[in-house]
Amino acid sequence: MKARPDLSAWLPLPEGVVPSDASVLPGGFRAGGVAAGGKPSGDPDLGILVCDAQEMTSAARFTPSATAAAPVIITRDRCTNERLRAVVVNSGNANASTGRLGLEEAARMQGAASMLLGFPLEQIALCSTGKIGEILDGGTYVKAMPRVRDDFSTDATSFNTAICTTDLFLKKAAVDVTLPGGTVRFVAQAKGAGMIHPGFATMLVFIQTDAKLSAGQCDRLLMNSLVDTFNRVSVDGQMSTNDTALLQASGTSGVAPQDKDEDALLQAGLDHVLLDLALQLISDGEGATRLARVKVTGGDALGHAAEKVADHIATSPLVQTALTGADPNWGRIIQAAGHALAGRGQVEFDVSFGGVQVCRANQAARYDLAAAEAAAAEQLVEIEVTFKGDGDAVRYFCDLTVDYVRFNSEYTT
Amino acid sequence: MKARPDLSAWLPLPEGVVPSDASVLPGGFRAGGVAAGGKPSGDPDLGILVCDAQEMTSAARFTPSATAAAPVIITRDRCTNERLRAVVVNSGNANASTGRLGLEEAARMQGAASMLLGFPLEQIALCSTGKIGEILDGGTYVKAMPRVRDDFSTDATSFNTAICTTDLFLKKAAVDVTLPGGTVRFVAQAKGAGMIHPGFATMLVFIQTDAKLSAGQCDRLLMNSLVDTFNRVSVDGQMSTNDTALLQASGTSGVAPQDKDEDALLQAGLDHVLLDLALQLISDGEGATRLARVKVTGGDALGHAAEKVADHIATSPLVQTALTGADPNWGRIIQAAGHALAGRGQVEFDVSFGGVQVCRANQAARYDLAAAEAAAAEQLVEIEVTFKGDGDAVRYFCDLTVDYVRFNSEYTT
Repeated sequence: MKARPDLSAWLPLPEGVVPSDASVLPGGFRAGGVAAGGKPSGDPDLGILVCDAQEMTSAARFTPSATAAAPVIITRDRCTNERLRAVVVNSGNANASTGRLGLEEAARMQGAASMLLGFPLEQIALCSTGKIGEILDGGTYVKAMPRVRDDFSTDATSFNTAICTTDLFLKKAAVDVTLPGGTVRFVAQAKGAGMIHPGFATMLVFIQTDAKLSAGQCDRLLMNSLVDTFNRVSVDGQMSTNDTALLQASGTSGVAPQDKDEDALLQAGLDHVLLDLALQLISDGEGATRLARVKVTGGDALGHAAEKVADHIATSPLVQTALTGADPNWGRIIQAAGHALAGRGQVEFDVSFGGVQVCRANQAARYDLAAAEAAAAEQLVEIEVTFKGDGDAVRYFCDLTVDYVRFNSEYTT
Repeated sequence: MKARPDLSAWLPLPEGVVPSDASVLPGGFRAGGVAAGGKPSGDPDLGILVCDAQEMTSAARFTPSATAAAPVIITRDRCTNERLRAVVVNSGNANASTGRLGLEEAARMQGAASMLLGFPLEQIALCSTGKIGEILDGGTYVKAMPRVRDDFSTDATSFNTAICTTDLFLKKAAVDVTLPGGTVRFVAQAKGAGMIHPGFATMLVFIQTDAKLSAGQCDRLLMNSLVDTFNRVSVDGQMSTNDTALLQASGTSGVAPQDKDEDALLQAGLDHVLLDLALQLISDGEGATRLARVKVTGGDALGHAAEKVADHIATSPLVQTALTGADPNWGRIIQAAGHALAGRGQVEFDVSFGGVQVCRANQAARYDLAAAEAAAAEQLVEIEVTFKGDGDAVRYFCDLTVDYVRFNSEYTT
C-alpha cells in the first residue's frame, strides 16, 4: 500500500469529535525539518518540534526493550517527562546498540538543542530511528539544527517528513474535540513500517494538543490511549529498541476538562487519533497489501486468554500468508488459537470472516464459500473468534508478503 | 533445500554410537505404505507400522495444543500408550478441526486396523497429517489397509514415503548402540516441513528399537530426547494440532541396559537420531535455504532467560530474513534479545557469527567483515549470544524466504 488506504470503517467518529487538518499544529507549537546529511539519499533526516507555551505539560512512554537505544535511555532517565518542551528526532540512524559512544552523541545533540532553543537540558526529548548498530555522528545533526529552527512554522509537514525512514507515506492524524468550555485540537505525527508489535509504546509518535492539562492528566490520557491503539497492532511481532510516544499539551486554548465526562471526551478524541495512526502504521507495514482486525471473545476476562489468542493469530506467519492469499483459512486460525491456549485441554472456537461463520466448535460450518472468500479479499478483513467466556481482545495486523521477505533480506536495519 | 544437507558438523557421534541403515527396521518390526486415494495427486498416503513382539513396550508424546486433532485425542485419551503395537498414519488430511465426525472417522480407522492386525483397539495409535478442517473419509483408508498389510516388510521406505505431505525428502535416521551386553538399533522416520515450533513433541516422528526396555524406560528416553532435539527447532514458530512422537521397543535383541551408564549410552544414541531428524525437518522447512544454530549463554539457569532469548532470535522474521540474505546482522539479534528480556532493565549482549565476534556489550566490535560475512553465508550458520550469567540454551532454525510466503499464500493447509 503506497498510499493511506480508506480506514474509516475501523475509525468511527465519537460524538463531539470531528476530523481536523493534520498539517496544522495546535496553538503553542512550531516545528521544522531539514536534510542534515546523515542519510546517503540526502532525504530530510532531522526534525525538531517545540512547545512555546510556558505552562506546558507532557507525558512520554518508551519501549521496555532490554536493549533500548541511547536516545531512549537519555530521555527516559535524564529528562523531566512531565515537561518536555522540545523533541529532536533524527532518522536514518537509530543510535541503538551504540554503547557509551552512542549515549555521548545523544547527549551532545541534547546539549546543542538546549543551547539553540533556550530550554533546560532535561526538557529536550531525543528520538532516533533507522539503522541499528552504527555509531551516530551527532555533529552532523548539531550543525543542521539552526537550519531546522529557521524552518520552524505551524505547519507539521517538514517535521513529519524528516522523521520517516522506510515509510511510504506520511502518518498523521488530527481531530477537534468540542468540550462545553470550547474546542481543543489533537494533532499527531508518527513513523514506522517494520519492527512493530504490541509493546508499551510502539514506534515514534508525537501528539500535540492545545488543551490545558495537568501532567497527570497528560499521562493518563497517553497511557489509556496507547493500551487500546498502538498496543493492539502488529506487523511482524518485533519490539523495537527505539519506541517512543510523546504527548505535549500547550494549554493555549485555555480549555481544561472539568469533570469525568469531559475527560472521557478528550480520551475518545485522543484514542481516535492514535488508532488512526496505528492503523496507518500497519497499512505501511513492510510489503503489506491487506489489513485484518481480529476480535476475540472468550475466556476469563482476568486470565488474558482472549489476549493470548488474539496475539497468536495476529503474529502467525501462516495466518498472515493466508491473508496475503485472500484465503478465509479458518484452519490456521484454529491452529494459532490452539497454540495460544496450549496445555489447557481442548477448547472449542467459532470463527467468522466478515460476518460469515466458517467454523463452529472447531469444525467447518455450512457456509457460503463465495461470501467468505469475498470477505477475505477485502482491503480490511474482519475476523471474529469466540470461545467460552466473556473476556475480549482485539488486534489489527497486516499480511506477510514476498515483498516483506525481499525487503528484509536485502536491507540492513 | 531439496536434498538433505550435510548436517554432520552439528551431529557429532557419541562414543559407542555408530550410524546405521535407516531403511532397515530393527528386529520385531514391519511396515508398509500405499496410495489409498485420499490425495488428489495419487501419492502414497497411508502407512502402517507394527511391532510383532509380544513383550513390546512403547511411549508417546502429543501436541499440547488446545485444538488437538482427532487422532491425537483418540490415541492420547483412549490408548494404552505404554503398549502401542501399531501406528496407522494417513497423510493429506490432518483430521484436525473436524469435531465429532472426525473422532468417529478416526475411531473407524482404529477399529478396522484392530480387526486387520489382530491387536486390541487400545494398542493402535493413529496419526494424521495434512489439511486442517476437512472431514476425513475413513472409508478410503480402511479399504486400503489390507493392501498396506500386503506391503509389510522390514524395509521402512514405503511407510516413510506414505507419511509425507509437503516434505521434499524422506526424513530418516538410524544408529547402532553397543552396550556391554550387545548391540541395539534405533531406527526413526519423521515428517514435517512447516508449522514447526518447540512444543512438547513436534510433528510426526516414529522410532523403533530392538532394545529390551520397560515402559518407564521408554518414556524417560523419549521425553529426555524430545526436550533436547525436537523442542529446540523452529521453522515458523507455529505449534501443530497433530504433533505426535512414538517410541516402540520390541526387545528382540534381548539387550537391556543394566545401569546408569548404559542408560546414558542409549539416551545418547536416541538423542543423536532425534537431533538428526529434527535438523532434517528444519532443512526441509518450507522454502528454507540456510540453517542457523544459536547458542545463548547468560541469565539465571532457573530463570529461563537464555531460553527466552534463544526463542525470540529463532522465531524473529527479521533475523530469519537476514539469514536468507547471508547478512551477519547483529543489530537484529540485539533487537530480538532485547525484546525477549523486555522490562528487565538494560542488558548487555555479545554476539558472534561463526566465531567472529561482531558485537560486544550491544555495540559493534572491531571485526573482520569479510570473515563475518563468510560465516553468515555458510549452509549451517553458527550464532553465539552471551550475557551475564551461566544459564544456557540452544535453538536451530531455518531462514524465511520468498518461497515460504509464496507457498503459504497459495496453498491451503
